[in-house]
Amino acid sequence: MRLAALLLALSAACSAQAQTPLPPEALRTADTLRAQALTDDTGYRIIEALTTEIGPRLPGSEADARAVAWAQARFESLGFDRVWTEPVTFPKWERRSEHASVLGTHAQPLVVTALGGSPGGTVEAEIVRFADFASLDAASPDEVAGKIVFLDFRMERTRDGSGYGAAGPVRSRGPSVAAAKGAVGFLMRSIGTSPNRVANTGMTRFEDGVTPIPAAATSLPDADQLVRLLERGPVQVRLALDCGFNGEYTSQNVIAELTGREAPDEIVVIASHLDSWDLGTGAVDDASGVGITMAAGHLIGRLPERPRRTLRVIAFANEEQGLIGARQYAERHADTLTTTHIVGAESDFGAGRIYAFNTSAKDASHPLTRQIADALAPLEIAFAPDDGSPGPDILPLAQRGMSWAWLGQDGTHYFDLHHNADDTLDKVDPDAVKQNVAAYSVFAYLVAESSERFPPSTTDGD
Amino acid sequence: MRLAALLLALSAACSAQAQTPLPPEALRTADTLRAQALTDDTGYRIIEALTTEIGPRLPGSEADARAVAWAQARFESLGFDRVWTEPVTFPKWERRSEHASVLGTHAQPLVVTALGGSPGGTVEAEIVRFADFASLDAASPDEVAGKIVFLDFRMERTRDGSGYGAAGPVRSRGPSVAAAKGAVGFLMRSIGTSPNRVANTGMTRFEDGVTPIPAAATSLPDADQLVRLLERGPVQVRLALDCGFNGEYTSQNVIAELTGREAPDEIVVIASHLDSWDLGTGAVDDASGVGITMAAGHLIGRLPERPRRTLRVIAFANEEQGLIGARQYAERHADTLTTTHIVGAESDFGAGRIYAFNTSAKDASHPLTRQIADALAPLEIAFAPDDGSPGPDILPLAQRGMSWAWLGQDGTHYFDLHHNADDTLDKVDPDAVKQNVAAYSVFAYLVAESSERFPPSTTDGD
Repeated sequence: MRLAALLLALSAACSAQAQTPLPPEALRTADTLRAQALTDDTGYRIIEALTTEIGPRLPGSEADARAVAWAQARFESLGFDRVWTEPVTFPKWERRSEHASVLGTHAQPLVVTALGGSPGGTVEAEIVRFADFASLDAASPDEVAGKIVFLDFRMERTRDGSGYGAAGPVRSRGPSVAAAKGAVGFLMRSIGTSPNRVANTGMTRFEDGVTPIPAAATSLPDADQLVRLLERGPVQVRLALDCGFNGEYTSQNVIAELTGREAPDEIVVIASHLDSWDLGTGAVDDASGVGITMAAGHLIGRLPERPRRTLRVIAFANEEQGLIGARQYAERHADTLTTTHIVGAESDFGAGRIYAFNTSAKDASHPLTRQIADALAPLEIAFAPDDGSPGPDILPLAQRGMSWAWLGQDGTHYFDLHHNADDTLDKVDPDAVKQNVAAYSVFAYLVAESSERFPPSTTDGD
Repeated sequence: MRLAALLLALSAACSAQAQTPLPPEALRTADTLRAQALTDDTGYRIIEALTTEIGPRLPGSEADARAVAWAQARFESLGFDRVWTEPVTFPKWERRSEHASVLGTHAQPLVVTALGGSPGGTVEAEIVRFADFASLDAASPDEVAGKIVFLDFRMERTRDGSGYGAAGPVRSRGPSVAAAKGAVGFLMRSIGTSPNRVANTGMTRFEDGVTPIPAAATSLPDADQLVRLLERGPVQVRLALDCGFNGEYTSQNVIAELTGREAPDEIVVIASHLDSWDLGTGAVDDASGVGITMAAGHLIGRLPERPRRTLRVIAFANEEQGLIGARQYAERHADTLTTTHIVGAESDFGAGRIYAFNTSAKDASHPLTRQIADALAPLEIAFAPDDGSPGPDILPLAQRGMSWAWLGQDGTHYFDLHHNADDTLDKVDPDAVKQNVAAYSVFAYLVAESSERFPPSTTDGD
C-alpha cells in the first residue's frame, strides 16, 4: 500500500514535471520582464531612430547600407554579446519615376506606383477590367491583347490579415499572366484598405519566357474613378514607368546574440526585417518589428544572468522582394535548423497589439507552449492552438523543419499603411509597442530558459 | 372704447405682418421643397459627374474649358430658363513637377507640393525652422539669408474652419516675407489636418519688389520628420520645383437663372466655384458646392410656378487663385449689388451638414431672417445671429454692400481634404449633400418668394 502510494506520487510528480517544463523561478522572472517591458520605451525609440535617421530602406539603395551600419551599431549599444552580419545578394531593382493618366475627353492624372520587379516603359492603350485574378486567368488572349489590364480586386479588411492572402496572386502573378496573353501594361487596384490617395507597391514576378510589361498599382479612389469612367465608355490610359533591375547588390542580415549560459549552441530566434519599401519610412513594415525584437533582446540582456540557451535577434535583409535574406540564412544554416535552432518567431505585421499565440506544436497539450501561453495571458493574448503561421522570414526556415511560434498582431489597420507612403512613425502607438515588447520578451526568455523542445515544423507555408 | 380696440387690432395685425413677411403658402411650399430635397439625389449625381468626367480643374488648364462647357450643358439639362457665361481673365499658373529631399547622412525624400504662384527653381540649403508666421516676420535677415525657411505652424481642427483663418498668413505671406529677408526657398507644414502623406497646395503672393523664391508645402508626417531631424543637427534640403506663371487665360463664370414671375429684375444669388486645385478631383472643394446649388435651383425650377424674384445660380471661375471670377463679377455688376442683387450665399466649405444659419442682418429681430431660420430648423440648422460670414466668392460682392446669407457647414473634417490629393468623391456623404440641397432650396426659395429686403452688408471680410 505504501509502495503503491509512493509510485503514484512519483508518477504524479513526473507528470507534473512533463506538464510544467519551466521552473517557478523562470516564470517569476518572466513576470518581472513583462512588467518592465510595459514601462520601457526602448522599442519605440528604436523605431523612431530607424525611421527618422535612415528613412525608407529600399533593398540595394544607398539607404540599405546605412541601415545595416545603423543596426549593427544599435545592437552593440543595446548590450548584446555578439553582433555580426552575413551577406545577402540579390538583383537590385530601382524606382525612378512613375506617372499615369486617363487620356481623351475625361483626361486626368492617376496616382500610381510601379510594382517591384516591373520594367520601365511607356504604354498608351485602352484598359480592360477584370474583377479578380481568376477572371483574368480565364480570359482569352483576344480580350487582353494590346490592352492595359485593369485588375480591380477589392481586398477585405480583417484582423488577421487573411484578406492579404486572398489578394496574393493579383500582384504576384497578375502582370505575368496579363503579359502572357498579350497585354501591353498592367494596372491594379492596390492591395490595401486605405481610402486615401496612396498606391501600394510590392513585388511581382514574370515567369520565364514571358516578356515583362510595365506593371503598377493605383489608389482605391483612383480605381473607383476608373470604374466610373468605364461606365461611360472605353477608357484610354497612359502608363509611364521609369524603373527596373540594375545589376546585383550585396546587403547583410544583421544578427545579434545573448550567449546562453548553459546551452550556448541552442538558439532561440526572434526576427524582423531591416529593409522596407521606399514610399513611406517603413515604420509599421518593419521598423516596428526591428524595435520590438531588439528591445526584447535588450531587456533580457539586462537580467542578472543570461538565459540557459542563446537568444539570437535577426534583422533580415530584403524581405520585401522575396524573403531573400531569410532564404539565404536558411541555406547557410540548413544543417542546424532542426537541431540547434530551437524555435523562431518574427514580428512583421505592424505595431498592433498581439492578441493570440501559438507554436508549430499546434497541439493544446504541448506543455511548453501552454506554459508560455499562460505567461502571455496577462497581456490579453489568447492561446490559439488552431491558428497561426510562421512570419514571412521564418517561413523559409520552417519549410526546412525549424519549429516556429506565432505572436499574432491585430492587423485591422495594417493594410491602410502597408507598402504605401502613409507608413510613417506617427501611425505607431507607443503603448502597443510596449505590449509587443513584453510579449516577445516573455516568449523568448521562457523558451531560452527551458530545456524542452517544440515538435519540428511540418509547415509548407501555413 | 370700440375705436381703441380697433386701433389695437390693426396695430397687432401690422406688427404680425412685419414679423411674418412670408405668406403661409410660401412656407408650405418650402416644407414640400425640403422634403423633396431629402429624397432627391440630383446634387450627388452632379458632384459625381463633375469629379468623374472633368476631374481636377486647375484654372487655365485644358480641364478648365471642359468644365465650363460641362457646367453650361448641365445647367441647360436641369431646366433653367437662361444659361450664359461671362469672361474671367487671369494669369495662368502651371504645375509641372515637384520634388524635395533631405540630403546628407539622413538622406530621404520628402512629400511636397508647390504653392500656387510659386516660381520654379532648384535650391539646396539648410532649413531654418519658425514655429509661426510672427516668428518669421520678426526674424532678422541674418537668421534667414541663404537658407530655406521651414514654417512649421500647426493648424487646429475646428468645426467652423476658424483654424484656417488663423493659419492664413503662413501660406499667403510667408514666402514673400522669407524672400524679402534673403531666404532661397520656402517650405511649410501644410495648412491641413490630415495625418496622411498628402501636401496641401494653395495660393501665395510675392509683394512688389520681392524676388519670388520656390515655395512649397510638405505633409504633416514629413514636417514631423523634419522636426525630429532638426533635433539631431542641421538639415540640408533640396527643393526642386518646375512650375510658374505662363501667360494669360480667359475662363468663364457660368450663370443660370430661373426668371422671377413678378420681380424678374430682383436677383437672389446662390453660388459655388467651378475650378479646383489639381491634386485631388475637387470633390469637397468645390464640386459639392456646384452640386448643392445646381440641385437647389433645379428643385425650385420644378415647382408649379417660378418664385416672385429671379434665382441666379453662379459657378464662379478661378476662386482658388484669388476669388478672381467673383471679383470680376463684382466689377461687372457693381451698380446693382445693393439694388437688384437681393442677397447672395455660397456653398464652398465641403459637403458636411449645415448646422447654422445667419444673414448680413446680424440681427435676431430681422423678420425674414427669422422666418427662414424657422424653416431651416427641421434640418437641424440653428439660427446663429452672432455668427457667420459671406462665402469666399460672395465676399467681393459683400464688400460692395450686397447682403449675404451664411449656411454654415460642419468643417471638422474639411481640412483633411482641402487642397490635397485626398479630395475625391468617396469623401462625399450623399445624405449630407441632400441636407445641404434641402437647406439651399428652402433658403433660396423663401428669399425669392418674399418681397422683403435684407439690410445691406457692412462687411469688410468677416
